[in-house]
Amino acid sequence: MRAVDIIIDKRNGLELSREALQFLIQGYVAGEIPDYQIAAWAMAVFFQGMSPRETADLTEVMLKSGRSLDLSGIAGPFVDKHSTGGVGDKTSLIVAPLIASLGIKDPMMSGRALGHTGGTLDKLEAIPGYRTALQDQEFREILDKTGYAMTGQTKDMVPADRLLYALRDVSGTVESIPLITASILSKKAAEGADALVLDVKYGSGAFMKDPGEAEKLARSLVNTGTVLGKRIIALLTDMDEPLGNMVGNFLEIEESLDCLEGKGPEDLMEVSLELAARMVVLGGRAGDAAEGRRICEAALASGNPRRLFLENIRCQGGDPKQVMEMRGTYRSNWSAEIRASRDGYISRIDAWKIGHTGILLGVGRNRTEDRVSPTAGVQFHKKRGDRIAQGDPIMTVWAADEASLAAAIPRLEDAVEYAALPPAPRQLVLKEITQAS
Amino acid sequence: MRAVDIIIDKRNGLELSREALQFLIQGYVAGEIPDYQIAAWAMAVFFQGMSPRETADLTEVMLKSGRSLDLSGIAGPFVDKHSTGGVGDKTSLIVAPLIASLGIKDPMMSGRALGHTGGTLDKLEAIPGYRTALQDQEFREILDKTGYAMTGQTKDMVPADRLLYALRDVSGTVESIPLITASILSKKAAEGADALVLDVKYGSGAFMKDPGEAEKLARSLVNTGTVLGKRIIALLTDMDEPLGNMVGNFLEIEESLDCLEGKGPEDLMEVSLELAARMVVLGGRAGDAAEGRRICEAALASGNPRRLFLENIRCQGGDPKQVMEMRGTYRSNWSAEIRASRDGYISRIDAWKIGHTGILLGVGRNRTEDRVSPTAGVQFHKKRGDRIAQGDPIMTVWAADEASLAAAIPRLEDAVEYAALPPAPRQLVLKEITQAS
Repeated sequence: MRAVDIIIDKRNGLELSREALQFLIQGYVAGEIPDYQIAAWAMAVFFQGMSPRETADLTEVMLKSGRSLDLSGIAGPFVDKHSTGGVGDKTSLIVAPLIASLGIKDPMMSGRALGHTGGTLDKLEAIPGYRTALQDQEFREILDKTGYAMTGQTKDMVPADRLLYALRDVSGTVESIPLITASILSKKAAEGADALVLDVKYGSGAFMKDPGEAEKLARSLVNTGTVLGKRIIALLTDMDEPLGNMVGNFLEIEESLDCLEGKGPEDLMEVSLELAARMVVLGGRAGDAAEGRRICEAALASGNPRRLFLENIRCQGGDPKQVMEMRGTYRSNWSAEIRASRDGYISRIDAWKIGHTGILLGVGRNRTEDRVSPTAGVQFHKKRGDRIAQGDPIMTVWAADEASLAAAIPRLEDAVEYAALPPAPRQLVLKEITQAS
Repeated sequence: MRAVDIIIDKRNGLELSREALQFLIQGYVAGEIPDYQIAAWAMAVFFQGMSPRETADLTEVMLKSGRSLDLSGIAGPFVDKHSTGGVGDKTSLIVAPLIASLGIKDPMMSGRALGHTGGTLDKLEAIPGYRTALQDQEFREILDKTGYAMTGQTKDMVPADRLLYALRDVSGTVESIPLITASILSKKAAEGADALVLDVKYGSGAFMKDPGEAEKLARSLVNTGTVLGKRIIALLTDMDEPLGNMVGNFLEIEESLDCLEGKGPEDLMEVSLELAARMVVLGGRAGDAAEGRRICEAALASGNPRRLFLENIRCQGGDPKQVMEMRGTYRSNWSAEIRASRDGYISRIDAWKIGHTGILLGVGRNRTEDRVSPTAGVQFHKKRGDRIAQGDPIMTVWAADEASLAAAIPRLEDAVEYAALPPAPRQLVLKEITQAS
């Protein structure tokens, strides 16, 4: 077998065998196949695509490039959720304790903020003492005790994905649906969940701007996951405006607590409940999503999810009491108000612009090695559809320092769009994609 | 400017600016842009193509990656010929002295055998003492004296092409018409000819199997050459059967001499005269190809091309007298006859199979570092359309050693196709492509 022949086959639109994909990916991880051949292959995949069988084989080959979490001995069911990334998206922090309170375990491996999108690990690390690099045994113990545990991917898990993603990033081959599918599912498969709910976002703040493209990705994820033996449901959700009223690391911990206390913003509650309802269905605790949602609403009212959230903080090294005391006060000193420049309605707050300004503020990062600030961020007082008068406060912004505050203010102003009339209502959850749909 | 953005633009089907191409190619040659980015870009070019302007800019950027031959002070016109490669194609050895005898200079930089195709430099080096690595000053002197000179490309000429070609070879991106165009024309532009006749071959022994693909390449070469200010004509010629009756290094020197003496095989004479006729038109010695052909036929009859051929051998280090003595006898000792396996007609001798068996015999090479044999090869006694009786000799084969002779015999037998009836005649020169056509 020669790598160049495999590249030419893919270039010519042929379906690659599992052996060929194994030869390429194992050879790449072992340093035997050079990155220029993998980059050329990835570009050929961008143009020619991959069949569901090929995508599933690639996912498994990538998964087997490293070790997986061992959940044996812990009672399931294990259900996880994955989002394709957005701005203000803290649903993981809400749904994990929510379903855990219903006896469904969530072994959650999360990522960090990159570019305009936030990262669950950075949010959790805004809690003083919270540890996201858990050893396997500790991860298992916390998962067993509180029903969920939050950790980062270690170096020995799915190394093929880490190498391939870094190469795709610099070779113009990120936007390939089968490659995205294999990247997401190989990581998710490594954490050992039996079932998965995918939040595939579309809109300016999403990876896929267009709902049609997001649906293609959702279908690829559902089809490939099914071939791999996972039960899987995807929701297409709106990410044209930030989700919730808080964008920032500790700010989002606070807003998650608000949601668990029944006082979260409507959009964030809606997306969280719709995701959790499907997780409850996949976990076998409800017959359909409507029943799942009723069960989730009742669970929230019981206060048990909030208790598990604080218990998880304690187990992973934080102090729940301290977190409660920091609420509303743990903020950067560099702060300003963004006010309405005219009377009328807010027609849109551009998630992409907010996310990109977040990098400047210290919420996110451009390069994986950059540090983020726990206390920087944006709080929205008004959002899409709200009536405003000139001078009304729309956002409060906290920046890591004075210079970034000054640079961020005009960008945040620019992210707000006005209209004389109220905008048409927008659907938060556009569509559910399952294997049968 | 960032390489990844240039790759993404090309991937998305945009036309790249000259500055972007310069950034990529100069950066690559300087070692600043890694090969994985160039491989991804080349694959994107394979799928998205390049405009004539882009192809011309790429050619010039590649040309300027090294130095060009300096022909100042030598009287022109300078006209060269280039073939896309074939089996038994020794037309360069015939047309160069032919047009030189008419006062048109041919500064010819040639290549070596690779894969199933032969190389002019290897054929010339079958002449004992013949030197193909000429210094510039010597090249200029021989060109001025005998009207043509034959040399190889030196390391400091078009280094971008050498790097890019090696990378394309291992990344599945050889078969891209704009990249082939830029590769051919950057090398030809470096030798300083004002005008160029291109022999674009199609058929089993050619790089392009299909005449339609060959025509696309021919049009790209003519259009791009014209943008670069070269006068240029392309002929589409048949390479489904080896050209002439000899395939081998010294064998082809002999057959070239036969042609210059007016006793060459019909197919080889036809293609050589059609090519030379266009070179004479581009050199301003004839108004059209028909007149050019009459002039070439008259020149051959004068004996002057043969005289220049022997004079060039002397100038480049060979001994013309010795060459004349070697004719018909300078052969490997390992020899055999291939005989007709039935009565009937030969319907085809597959050029690709002959060329590939040539590698085994020692005529050609698989890797650039392999050595070739001067005395190995194949002589055809019968070709397409010839009537044969079972047992008639079809070819004589000479191999570099006994083992390769034994391995070659069944392959050569397999290259001959028979029919009960004579095959339909086949057109040797299918089409002429000019800027206007």
